[in-house]
Amino acid sequence: MALIVQKYGGTSVANVERIKVVAERVKQTIEDGNQVVVVVSARSGITNQLIERAKALNPHPDDREMDVLLSVGEQETIALTTMALHAIGVAAVSRTGAQAGITTSLAHTRARILDISGGDIKAQLNQGKAVIVAGFQGSADGHITTLGRGGSDLSAIAIAGAIQADICQIYTDVDGVYTTDPRVVKNAKKIKEISYEEMLELASSGTKVMQSRAVEFASKFNIPFEVRSSFNNNPGTIVKQEVASMEGVLVSGLAVDKNQCKIVVSDIPDKPGTAAAVFKSLAEIEVVVDMIIQNIGRKGLANLTFTVPADDAHRAEQKVNEILSENGGGNVSVLDKIAKISIVGIGMKSHSGVAATCFDALAAEEINIQMISTSEIKITVAIKPEQANKATQILHDVFNLEK
Amino acid sequence: MALIVQKYGGTSVANVERIKVVAERVKQTIEDGNQVVVVVSARSGITNQLIERAKALNPHPDDREMDVLLSVGEQETIALTTMALHAIGVAAVSRTGAQAGITTSLAHTRARILDISGGDIKAQLNQGKAVIVAGFQGSADGHITTLGRGGSDLSAIAIAGAIQADICQIYTDVDGVYTTDPRVVKNAKKIKEISYEEMLELASSGTKVMQSRAVEFASKFNIPFEVRSSFNNNPGTIVKQEVASMEGVLVSGLAVDKNQCKIVVSDIPDKPGTAAAVFKSLAEIEVVVDMIIQNIGRKGLANLTFTVPADDAHRAEQKVNEILSENGGGNVSVLDKIAKISIVGIGMKSHSGVAATCFDALAAEEINIQMISTSEIKITVAIKPEQANKATQILHDVFNLEK
Repeated sequence: MALIVQKYGGTSVANVERIKVVAERVKQTIEDGNQVVVVVSARSGITNQLIERAKALNPHPDDREMDVLLSVGEQETIALTTMALHAIGVAAVSRTGAQAGITTSLAHTRARILDISGGDIKAQLNQGKAVIVAGFQGSADGHITTLGRGGSDLSAIAIAGAIQADICQIYTDVDGVYTTDPRVVKNAKKIKEISYEEMLELASSGTKVMQSRAVEFASKFNIPFEVRSSFNNNPGTIVKQEVASMEGVLVSGLAVDKNQCKIVVSDIPDKPGTAAAVFKSLAEIEVVVDMIIQNIGRKGLANLTFTVPADDAHRAEQKVNEILSENGGGNVSVLDKIAKISIVGIGMKSHSGVAATCFDALAAEEINIQMISTSEIKITVAIKPEQANKATQILHDVFNLEK
Repeated sequence: MALIVQKYGGTSVANVERIKVVAERVKQTIEDGNQVVVVVSARSGITNQLIERAKALNPHPDDREMDVLLSVGEQETIALTTMALHAIGVAAVSRTGAQAGITTSLAHTRARILDISGGDIKAQLNQGKAVIVAGFQGSADGHITTLGRGGSDLSAIAIAGAIQADICQIYTDVDGVYTTDPRVVKNAKKIKEISYEEMLELASSGTKVMQSRAVEFASKFNIPFEVRSSFNNNPGTIVKQEVASMEGVLVSGLAVDKNQCKIVVSDIPDKPGTAAAVFKSLAEIEVVVDMIIQNIGRKGLANLTFTVPADDAHRAEQKVNEILSENGGGNVSVLDKIAKISIVGIGMKSHSGVAATCFDALAAEEINIQMISTSEIKITVAIKPEQANKATQILHDVFNLEK
């Protein structure tokens, strides 16, 4: 008998029919001899409807009240899912975030989990019941809080950790983590096992199966989880702590992000603090900066090149211009869109040569690399977006990811 | 400065536009120098949508889970109403039933209020905030409970009592309690003040401005309230403890219920317990019985005549037939629909002659009275439904209710 946490996202509980499918899967899991805790999101679309109503009443709704409002989405789902289980003869009971003892900070709309007591989840399981818990929400001093984007994944993983579940299954609309986007590379392969670190690098490089936050939490507390599809019974991808066998695999996957812009800041004073001022100002307006290159140009002035999501490029340019005028001048130009391709693999830690193989393979096909950044388990190159698909296929082949 | 509880029902908060109107009224009340607690219902229609989804998943949804489900309706409204107040510069904060310290019995879907601490409502008011509380809901041992039909009125009145409000205003889609239905009698008049007892008699006799339960609670704890319209600024009807001045008014109003059936049970054994068995069985299937007459017929057998809501007549007939066959036999016949007209007034307690005036006035117009029942402050007559409007006008005139 295993203790399993299953998390179902908004599309998996979107309507009455989908909820029935979830209930059947939970029933099957129990009949296979397991204890099950189910963590559910709001039905897809509900959250947007609620936000729409809020914005119609107040363009800047209060964070505390947003939490009171948005938490109704999951509360509806736990009740409906529990009723669906009863209808097919499965003993079950629902718990809100507060009832499940999910204690958070009082930072409304982006609360951090401080503690999970689990409430009476264990007791209910031992009475033979499935426990249906509202994801995304918790409580702080009697106030309702929410965890922000990706919060339900985080709830599921945190609960799995708190009740020492054997596995946490994240059901979603993809059936696992692939070596790269299967729409781009036909022979992309589902990865059986991957380390937290690789999963994080893939997520931060554009393969958004899950929010990084939930993966970081799982990594910190060593909680294994599986990403799998709620639309079929295929085994998914298990994400867990690095094990020796993983190191045999040089490269695990490729992440592609075609929606980036390159910003070049030239002729800034080469003195301490200028770059920091630029990036601090971008952080303030919540623009995520990646692939930073700094070098010295003519007359002791410096150049700074970095990438930002294309949608943020205009805001970023304006902000940087402001900062430069306060910091001794400089020029900003936003260049065309670029694509980022990231090669991820913990095997790279102890092997050299991945970068060289990559550069060679791309050069052979006359694909020009505009920028390069590397970390311990990742190499990222920026190229022209129209070459991204071809480059991905080339790298997928050269690192034998189809095997 | 007065402390006012305002309760807005589902139609008053049905959509974003209506919520804005509510917010403006709350703002005005505060600007007039008052402290305000607002109790809101779910947006009209929401509850039915939720029930529909529940029934699609489970024809007999669990009561506990129904409470988890239905309580989201009010939770949405408190957040939206609070946001609407913020948008027009009114400091406000929302509270769920649990947060407002509404403790109930654990009887899900029909919980009784056990205690209202008010939580930090007073403290929030003293900080200059309006407090927006979810009606209809409470908590019991950490579980979410709901109060059943009319629960939001009950919440408002109970909170008003707990915080010792000066007045509780029940905003609805009618602008008060009338001497009788203004659609029937053109010169029907809004009643300025009425006693709890009269209000209860009017409610139980078909004038459904409010559920009896909330009025009973108000009466028990002597909490005055006002029924008024959320669509205009007219003063409504104040419902309060009987005062000397009220006794000068012989008759306060007329209630009409055209949707009743007369059931005649004949030839039942005239022995103790037969009538009790009949009415107990009807109570079990939740049929509300009214206007009971028992008399002895031929051969020592008894007859029993009573009225039930027309919609329940068929169920009632079946049930009574079952019971009779277990209790020595008898015959049941459901007669045509009848109309009940009730004359209500605490003045009747100390005045005789109301019944005689009523019977004379109806006889003069050749309206036949089929059944009569009386209480200390009410006389009810059953007549043909097609004569109900005429009879109502005659009685309205003879008791000078237009004045």
